[in-house]
Amino acid sequence: MKQLQEKILADGKVLSDQVLKVDSFLNHQIDPVLMQAIGEEFASRFSNEGITKVLTLESSGIAPAMMTGLSMGVTAVFARKRKSLTLVDSLYTANVHSFTKNETNEISVSKDFIGPNDVVLVMDDFLANGQAALGLLDIVEQAGAALAGIGIVIEKGFQDGGKLLRNRGIRVESLARISSLENGTVKFLEEVASR
Amino acid sequence: MKQLQEKILADGKVLSDQVLKVDSFLNHQIDPVLMQAIGEEFASRFSNEGITKVLTLESSGIAPAMMTGLSMGVTAVFARKRKSLTLVDSLYTANVHSFTKNETNEISVSKDFIGPNDVVLVMDDFLANGQAALGLLDIVEQAGAALAGIGIVIEKGFQDGGKLLRNRGIRVESLARISSLENGTVKFLEEVASR
Repeated sequence: MKQLQEKILADGKVLSDQVLKVDSFLNHQIDPVLMQAIGEEFASRFSNEGITKVLTLESSGIAPAMMTGLSMGVTAVFARKRKSLTLVDSLYTANVHSFTKNETNEISVSKDFIGPNDVVLVMDDFLANGQAALGLLDIVEQAGAALAGIGIVIEKGFQDGGKLLRNRGIRVESLARISSLENGTVKFLEEVASR
Repeated sequence: MKQLQEKILADGKVLSDQVLKVDSFLNHQIDPVLMQAIGEEFASRFSNEGITKVLTLESSGIAPAMMTGLSMGVTAVFARKRKSLTLVDSLYTANVHSFTKNETNEISVSKDFIGPNDVVLVMDDFLANGQAALGLLDIVEQAGAALAGIGIVIEKGFQDGGKLLRNRGIRVESLARISSLENGTVKFLEEVASR
């Protein structure tokens, strides 16, 4: 997605060979107009899939997931990283390990909102090791729902999450795929047709 | 806001005299169409205020804040409840106590995204004791920014946050003001013109 790549080049900050900071438009400050375009792009790429639900993880997945839901005409659900007091039972749960934060969180989704009749698009802001996506896929499976695919805003193509998921035959659509952050420079994989 | 009140009556669940569960459309599953209408309503109520930034708190504030930013043509910033590894310094911080969860979180906002030239609309999904709003106001003050007011989706009018904030002369706009959850029934304060 050209608009997103240009935004990353203009406003992203390379903190190391592994870390791209996009806090100015994606995961701390949010550019709602860009997010709307991102939602429209995912809706376009996953049209004709019969998607009934977008599933993401708090917090940074919420903005793109909601905009995708708006474009698709479906609701968005965000998994919570801890149980809240008003979510007492009837939960799907999965464990997600964050290598960045070196901690494991339990994520949970109410059984009220995903079920066997759903066709789910799993979404997240970043794809790196794929741990968050795997946790969300676990929940889709527990729900007996169908998986339409995975929508990612920014994929770190030099980490193994994308390969891990695609090797399972899952359709992964990433709007920007970064091949390298070496020397403080963002390089993208060339835009490719979906797998 | 009539559409929101009707949604609360149709889909909200009263768990106790204190707790209204709106997980089906606001803070776990998100209804993007309702959220869009909420954003338009806030943009309308706070038009002519010269707002340059919407400030909220992760996670449940993100959806209404982003939609309000979209309608206003400004960016939305969400305070984080913990420092992330990619937000290393240059932070405004404040403490927010949650009576519901009985814990105090440090919230933080990068100094890159709010400054003395900003006119800020503080937003949240719920207003109960007002602790989250006070933390966000603290950050607005640290930034030397101007406060346009506070936008709340659902105010628990039987708790003291609204009074606390309005007594400071702050304009608080709540789209649904609940006067009571007693006997399992949601009662609203009558719709009033903004103060």
